[in-house]
Amino acid sequence: MLININPILSPDLLSTLHSMGHGDTIVLADANFPSSSLSKKLIRLDGVDIPSAAKAILSVFPLDSFIEYPVRRMEIDNKPEEINDIQHDFIEAVKSTAGERWKISSMERFKFYEETKKAYAVISTTDARAYGCFMLTKGVIKPDGSVW
Amino acid sequence: MLININPILSPDLLSTLHSMGHGDTIVLADANFPSSSLSKKLIRLDGVDIPSAAKAILSVFPLDSFIEYPVRRMEIDNKPEEINDIQHDFIEAVKSTAGERWKISSMERFKFYEETKKAYAVISTTDARAYGCFMLTKGVIKPDGSVW
Repeated sequence: MLININPILSPDLLSTLHSMGHGDTIVLADANFPSSSLSKKLIRLDGVDIPSAAKAILSVFPLDSFIEYPVRRMEIDNKPEEINDIQHDFIEAVKSTAGERWKISSMERFKFYEETKKAYAVISTTDARAYGCFMLTKGVIKPDGSVW
Repeated sequence: MLININPILSPDLLSTLHSMGHGDTIVLADANFPSSSLSKKLIRLDGVDIPSAAKAILSVFPLDSFIEYPVRRMEIDNKPEEINDIQHDFIEAVKSTAGERWKISSMERFKFYEETKKAYAVISTTDARAYGCFMLTKGVIKPDGSVW
């Protein structure tokens, strides 16, 4: 336990997020995503759902304002525009924790798999709702502590 | 994800529980317990509370009927008989998952630390309620799949 640190941020997860720099990406994945086989580094959050994980991560992780879409979601097959329940909950978690300024784009499923291989780490939750996979790009924190 | 396996049972946790044999013990610990420094093997369940962890573990882990007390709780300092909120919730989880037949004893805090060093593994939750530390002894499963 650490003061003012969400307990979902395990020692390994907190260390990983801290180690990342500007432009590095993480994937936040649902329970059925092939997180172990696709990741350079895997962090498991067993028993944690996507909204709780997103809120914990975004309590310390700055999003990237240097690019148009610092948040990307996996598209539902053949329904690229549809936002399902878990995606809705994730988007609400982003808004409530990181604010309203961030634009969210989408990525076709197999493209998402390819991009995952390049990500700094994959954070695997046990939220079993389908298409609950998201990619976040790390931004910049200014000397005064605010997000660029 | 595996069919009929509680998602809190991570690959590492499930493997560990499976590897244990009759008489081996595990500690289930609250968020402030010195799990890392006292354990031979540490498994973290970040974002998971004690009742949820207990229910998941006891869904596959047989308790030991060869000894009088296969379940032990850490005593509250100077109040060894008192059952606080987290201990109450843990005991209810044991009853609802493993049944009513198991007797629960207690152990003084520093004795609990010493016994933890001998345990097969410590499972560290992020339940922040104090004195939420428990020791479970593994029992025997019969050829027909029932607990001895």
